[in-house]
Amino acid sequence: MTKSGHASDVARLSLNTATTKRWTLGEAVDGTVRAGLGAIGLWRDRVAEAGLAEAAARVDGAGLRVSSLCRGGFLTATDDAGARAAVEDNRAAVVEAATLGTAELIMVVGGLPAASAPGGPALPGGDRDLVGARRRVADRIGDLVPFALEHGVRLVLEPMHPMFAADRAVISTLGQALDVAAPYPAKAVGVVVDTYHVWWDPELEAQIARAGAEGRLASYQVSDWILPLATDPLLSRGYMGDGYVDFASIGRWVTAAGYTGDVEVEIFNQEVWDTPGDEVLAIITDRYVRHVLPSLTPH
Amino acid sequence: MTKSGHASDVARLSLNTATTKRWTLGEAVDGTVRAGLGAIGLWRDRVAEAGLAEAAARVDGAGLRVSSLCRGGFLTATDDAGARAAVEDNRAAVVEAATLGTAELIMVVGGLPAASAPGGPALPGGDRDLVGARRRVADRIGDLVPFALEHGVRLVLEPMHPMFAADRAVISTLGQALDVAAPYPAKAVGVVVDTYHVWWDPELEAQIARAGAEGRLASYQVSDWILPLATDPLLSRGYMGDGYVDFASIGRWVTAAGYTGDVEVEIFNQEVWDTPGDEVLAIITDRYVRHVLPSLTPH
Repeated sequence: MTKSGHASDVARLSLNTATTKRWTLGEAVDGTVRAGLGAIGLWRDRVAEAGLAEAAARVDGAGLRVSSLCRGGFLTATDDAGARAAVEDNRAAVVEAATLGTAELIMVVGGLPAASAPGGPALPGGDRDLVGARRRVADRIGDLVPFALEHGVRLVLEPMHPMFAADRAVISTLGQALDVAAPYPAKAVGVVVDTYHVWWDPELEAQIARAGAEGRLASYQVSDWILPLATDPLLSRGYMGDGYVDFASIGRWVTAAGYTGDVEVEIFNQEVWDTPGDEVLAIITDRYVRHVLPSLTPH
Repeated sequence: MTKSGHASDVARLSLNTATTKRWTLGEAVDGTVRAGLGAIGLWRDRVAEAGLAEAAARVDGAGLRVSSLCRGGFLTATDDAGARAAVEDNRAAVVEAATLGTAELIMVVGGLPAASAPGGPALPGGDRDLVGARRRVADRIGDLVPFALEHGVRLVLEPMHPMFAADRAVISTLGQALDVAAPYPAKAVGVVVDTYHVWWDPELEAQIARAGAEGRLASYQVSDWILPLATDPLLSRGYMGDGYVDFASIGRWVTAAGYTGDVEVEIFNQEVWDTPGDEVLAIITDRYVRHVLPSLTPH
């Protein structure tokens, strides 16, 4: 337990391992337990380093829930070989999620074929057909649904901030994610509300309510929108309270939609990564208790 | 005429004076005429430097249409004095637009009260109520409509990229802009489609069609989404063809919506600003003819 938290306060708080990037999976598990949190969100690279079976045993032995596995996705390839490779990799991710004991596999669906690299310039003559890229995402999700259902794992579509639409994820709003999910059972395809990505959306309240009504609200992730943007905007996330996000309103909407699951803190930020992990967890706990937790009590 | 353009090709092309930032209004008018363009989009600061009457005479004497005046807006103040000052400033902008002979006054509606400055960090304890800020924008538009109608000027709401929602404009999608416009006549409140701001929107085709059907499609502005983002993301716009925007699709949707007006090129970019204005106009003309014009012919 940190000084600022009480056990009941942090029962739903989850550390996403991307927040403490320098920690191994084992260190992150131990730190999460020391801080008294109930859950941990895992990235596949950390799991692979530790070994899948070892990672699963470690988390289970620590008595932590796995709130989600990050991440599958990257489904926008135009050629058959690329599409097949994407399906194959995502099947592996589904198996990993099931082995780790989480039903929620977060999906970052990929950008335009014209992208030279994440954050990189457009390829001259590259494919800029955004409508087509979105159609391929929907098709690949359809390909993956039966396998996910067999393994009791949900494909959790992550709408990403439109500033990443070109190079990282062509799903840009919660409503769009729910439209892609619509043909499939709620236990096969869900959505995540990540405040950093969706806080600006004029439809947010309505689409969170829709996600709840459809039983697709699979994860709530919190971090803040800070300005000025970092040189690499992917690293612009801040601690809750340091930026512009109205956590009181969004938390109220998520709660009204019936969400009672874990609340993951996922912050990509060089300064946070340069801070010792236990300090980061103490700050996160304090900010969560002050800015997020009050909105999570049903009224 | 530039070498690459024919008079009929550039008849609808308009130079927004923000693209040639170093030019005075007089220089921009002369350059636009030299390049054979039919129209010019003016910023208020350039008009003020020249003097309103002189600016109007200069543009009129050159035989150019004024495709729009940039910009009114900044309507999110929480206090009465701030709201009154905003209405006052926008009335002045309406009069300027009418004097310059344009019906289209572009409105950048303003960010959250928590913003310390455009692009700046959030003020501790500042007002982050995005829903409330959007409500005030709608209220101020209502305040301004009668005055705009009296002067034959349309308030043209500009949805800005969600990366500017905190600090510059809480209208983030075309659909949201049309919802704000809905209570008023189409000649009082319109919308602008600026490719840089809206290219990513999954609802874009549908909302452009809606804007056309409602008679509110007041302006089409083109520039490209380039990566990596500039240190100041406001200056990240690029020449058409250098980035990720699918001009073929968006131009087709705008044309199908019945838009036959001018096409403004508005590029904020330090490198463009450092290039001699006549060169910029030659590049713009070339890129327009190659990437934008083909999509503007009705099929």
